Amino acid sequence: VTGFGVFSVGGGEPRVGFRAGDEIRDMSGVDEIFRQPSLNALMARGRAAWDEALGTALEGGLPRVAAVDATAYLPFEVADYVDFSSSIEHAENMGELFRPGGTLHPNWRRLPIAYHGRAGTVAVSGTDVVRPRGQLKPADGETPEYVPTRRLDIELELGFVVGVPSPRGTPVPTGAFADHVFGVVLLNDWSARDIQAWESVPLGPFLGKSFLTSISAWVTPLALLEPLRVEARTQDPPPLQHLAGGRDWALDLELAVELNGTVVSQGNARTLYWTMPQHLAHATSNGASLRTGDLMGSGTISGAERGSEGSLMELNRAGAEPIVLADGTERAFLEDGDEVVLRARGGGVELGEVRGRVLPAVT
Amino acid sequence: VTGFGVFSVGGGEPRVGFRAGDEIRDMSGVDEIFRQPSLNALMARGRAAWDEALGTALEGGLPRVAAVDATAYLPFEVADYVDFSSSIEHAENMGELFRPGGTLHPNWRRLPIAYHGRAGTVAVSGTDVVRPRGQLKPADGETPEYVPTRRLDIELELGFVVGVPSPRGTPVPTGAFADHVFGVVLLNDWSARDIQAWESVPLGPFLGKSFLTSISAWVTPLALLEPLRVEARTQDPPPLQHLAGGRDWALDLELAVELNGTVVSQGNARTLYWTMPQHLAHATSNGASLRTGDLMGSGTISGAERGSEGSLMELNRAGAEPIVLADGTERAFLEDGDEVVLRARGGGVELGEVRGRVLPAVT
Repeated sequence: VTGFGVFSVGGGEPRVGFRAGDEIRDMSGVDEIFRQPSLNALMARGRAAWDEALGTALEGGLPRVAAVDATAYLPFEVADYVDFSSSIEHAENMGELFRPGGTLHPNWRRLPIAYHGRAGTVAVSGTDVVRPRGQLKPADGETPEYVPTRRLDIELELGFVVGVPSPRGTPVPTGAFADHVFGVVLLNDWSARDIQAWESVPLGPFLGKSFLTSISAWVTPLALLEPLRVEARTQDPPPLQHLAGGRDWALDLELAVELNGTVVSQGNARTLYWTMPQHLAHATSNGASLRTGDLMGSGTISGAERGSEGSLMELNRAGAEPIVLADGTERAFLEDGDEVVLRARGGGVELGEVRGRVLPAVT
Repeated sequence: VTGFGVFSVGGGEPRVGFRAGDEIRDMSGVDEIFRQPSLNALMARGRAAWDEALGTALEGGLPRVAAVDATAYLPFEVADYVDFSSSIEHAENMGELFRPGGTLHPNWRRLPIAYHGRAGTVAVSGTDVVRPRGQLKPADGETPEYVPTRRLDIELELGFVVGVPSPRGTPVPTGAFADHVFGVVLLNDWSARDIQAWESVPLGPFLGKSFLTSISAWVTPLALLEPLRVEARTQDPPPLQHLAGGRDWALDLELAVELNGTVVSQGNARTLYWTMPQHLAHATSNGASLRTGDLMGSGTISGAERGSEGSLMELNRAGAEPIVLADGTERAFLEDGDEVVLRARGGGVELGEVRGRVLPAVT
């Protein structure tokens, strides 16, 4: 099974459905909250309503539609989008590639590093990515150019979405995670490495990321992830008290990246250093409020072994070791026409895939 | 005159009004788009509708309400919030204070530096700021603490709000600025400098800013700013072609910061290096789409003279030269109970003030 999303068939109204294998169970006859073009109404209701909806979806008896006949939509209206950097291997790899000789920053093991991304360009799986133009870092003393990116990359991430909001001024503790968070999506944080490298100092990534972020069409509710929960890896030094809980929310979820049909990366989400409840507690630790639809990404999930990295930049060592595809061609970064698919599965659950094809830059 | 906003009187429904001096002109009888709790419907309509609304507001004949009797609301639903860093004096000051001996980064004169902030915590003038807690930078080798900020600061900014959206994949040129942008607000980007200093490397500010951003209750439409338009200061080196236009949109607008009734800073918005049309063109130069309600801040506006800086951190040289208030007390950063008011005026226009009082941290 996969989770809840929004779909239509044959010109009908978008409505809420539950994806299980190759079929979608149509929830629209059950209640008015399922006759909506987004999950926001359901998500705002809270745990009791979520559990009831899941019970109904799993029971059977609902009208079924072949997924291949349906159109899927962005499953919820995104409020704010926050992206973390919670894979220590990814942070170390990127530190080394962007700043040769660089080490992990002293703050990294003390708090989960994050920034706000662009909510308005989060789109559903299947959306094409138009190669963005941007200002590229010049060689010393030269004039930068405004040209299509030469280093278009992916970032394999998990994201969670907030259902129940919180008031401004009140931090949400790690123990309240499952009361606020509706479920999990797979996420591709498309990245233009050359744009990012030039613009990011000192305020972080902006145009190198904001052109598109793709999420799966189906949101897997937390209840379905129970069998996948494992203790997180050791955190050293131990986190401060307000970040110390929620370590029982690592997920034993196998991850894969396909590029033009070749599996180019295989990892596991349990390698993440910081957990989702720690993300939520950190993001609200200054009293920032939550809204229904807040999306928080894990950051790229990279394991310690070669071939488990969640970005091409890491897999190919910034272009030094190109990936060889099944058709014999090599890839450093993405070429026009390439198609990427992200997948995640474990314990009888399969998250919705995230698929996207690269279109040439607009002239 | 000031601009459009949302207000109610005596328990009535929130509606659109136009603020002029001490009174509000009630637009709700004119059209259905003014019987709304936000300006979003009006903003989405485009220039012809904006000009018609302004004509109606200025004509007279509308019911009038004393502003003192009305409650004002957040004037629009914020889609994405982007904050720029477009004052070269501010960037130089902060570079020096955060990184002693540091100079302006090589990218700064090539593109307007920006990051995404938290849209969900943008609030209307008059909202109290609860002193945020956060993890503070430890002395070398020590354990950080999670405590109330000791360096609560303000940032005096202008913001503009997008009315007419744009599709993903299509950059918006500087020349289309006035077709997309509805108007301008005054903005206080509250900042906790100690939280910000510890968290910001390498992905930029997050919790040091996300607890609250305050904007004026009234949005001044671009048409009212025409008399204030001046040529921007020299940009050297000249910007790349896609950022070269829109230099005729600097604003001769006098700015002031009051702290507990003492004017502690006086500057002018024309000192900004990058202009609003350049901000808009840059933010969409990678094909990122615009939505109605996108808010883009200028970044702190600091002039070259002492006493024209738009943050306490700069005015007091990171605490080394405390500000003396009219009551004889000194301030490095904000204390509980302090009240800050931002003001801006010029050419017969007065932007809505931005007022906020500091409440103690929640225990």
